[in-house]
Amino acid sequence: MYHVFAFATPNSVKVPIALEELGLDYELHAVNVKKGEQKRDDFLALNPNGKVPVLTDTHRTFVLTESAAILVHLAERHGKLLPTEPLARARTFEQLFIHASGLSPAFGQAGYFRKMAPAGSSAHAIERFGNEAQRQLGLLDRALAQRKFVAGDDYSIADIAHFGWIWRRAFPDLELTGTPNVERWYDSISQRPAVKTAIARAEALAAAAS
Amino acid sequence: MYHVFAFATPNSVKVPIALEELGLDYELHAVNVKKGEQKRDDFLALNPNGKVPVLTDTHRTFVLTESAAILVHLAERHGKLLPTEPLARARTFEQLFIHASGLSPAFGQAGYFRKMAPAGSSAHAIERFGNEAQRQLGLLDRALAQRKFVAGDDYSIADIAHFGWIWRRAFPDLELTGTPNVERWYDSISQRPAVKTAIARAEALAAAAS
Repeated sequence: MYHVFAFATPNSVKVPIALEELGLDYELHAVNVKKGEQKRDDFLALNPNGKVPVLTDTHRTFVLTESAAILVHLAERHGKLLPTEPLARARTFEQLFIHASGLSPAFGQAGYFRKMAPAGSSAHAIERFGNEAQRQLGLLDRALAQRKFVAGDDYSIADIAHFGWIWRRAFPDLELTGTPNVERWYDSISQRPAVKTAIARAEALAAAAS
Repeated sequence: MYHVFAFATPNSVKVPIALEELGLDYELHAVNVKKGEQKRDDFLALNPNGKVPVLTDTHRTFVLTESAAILVHLAERHGKLLPTEPLARARTFEQLFIHASGLSPAFGQAGYFRKMAPAGSSAHAIERFGNEAQRQLGLLDRALAQRKFVAGDDYSIADIAHFGWIWRRAFPDLELTGTPNVERWYDSISQRPAVKTAIARAEALAAAAS
């Protein structure tokens, strides 16, 4: 059985979504990032980078960090959610890396500087990351104007990756009203039974740990 | 033949390094990011995200963006530089995503706020990203204390990914004196004939375009 160390965060939720989509059995373990538990020694022994999620199994035959690397591993191991045709596959990795290097850091930094940085210290950073987060949302909207899912005609781990931060868009104060294609896509992903179940489990985990 | 739209940047250099390692024929096309050419309409038609590198072929049968997605595509297509054994492969993707989501944004933002942001506007951001860039360098050092290459015993596209920003560490004002394992690894990668050739070609490209 898989074990996932996680919380109700943008990156954490991707892993239970993938596990639900693949029909796999797993147990969630709370790492309360609001209390800083990801910096405790017992968690740093699992992930020296101090970040959720972490995937492992009952006998700890492996420990894997980085949500997108976990998605790739699960998709390849269980043979779903990642195309095998070279160009469709390349498009999926392209979106996974746009998410990891572009949208995700922009959303995270925009939220940090708007909500958590010392007041008055960061007008330039707020403008920089707010603009970049909005630009990334616009790029995603443009991609979704041309195709049903972020990387093509089929639902893939790239959709799961982007979904995590679009689900948590309130942190950087973003809305989907100006990006109708993202809104259409978000609504359709949100209705998937696997996504509903994974979110419910992640939120129950966080509520029980608070 | 492959065509690479690039400049002598941390992300651009990864693609010619991989192509040299794979022994493939390619032509470099300069996109002078110092003059903002990555925001020109002709380039945005190739990559709406306005970033180098971009990989294509002579007949434009495909156009692929995101340096790490390009590395994965080349490695899979030509059967080298990416392990097939599941755990070694997972470790490689883990490092690719640590680079894309962690080290690369930290190095880029630390450099931006130290070198390019309006003076006096960003003390908090300089501290935040400077600390994070140093922390990422420390994590890489810890990984390289345990293994020869960043993801295991074998040289892989994860080494090529990390190499790009370590090569350009002067931008965020970082040094390798406190991270001896990164220094040992960097020196060994720098000596590879493919890496020397790729850097020489990227630098000649940038010099000719200036």
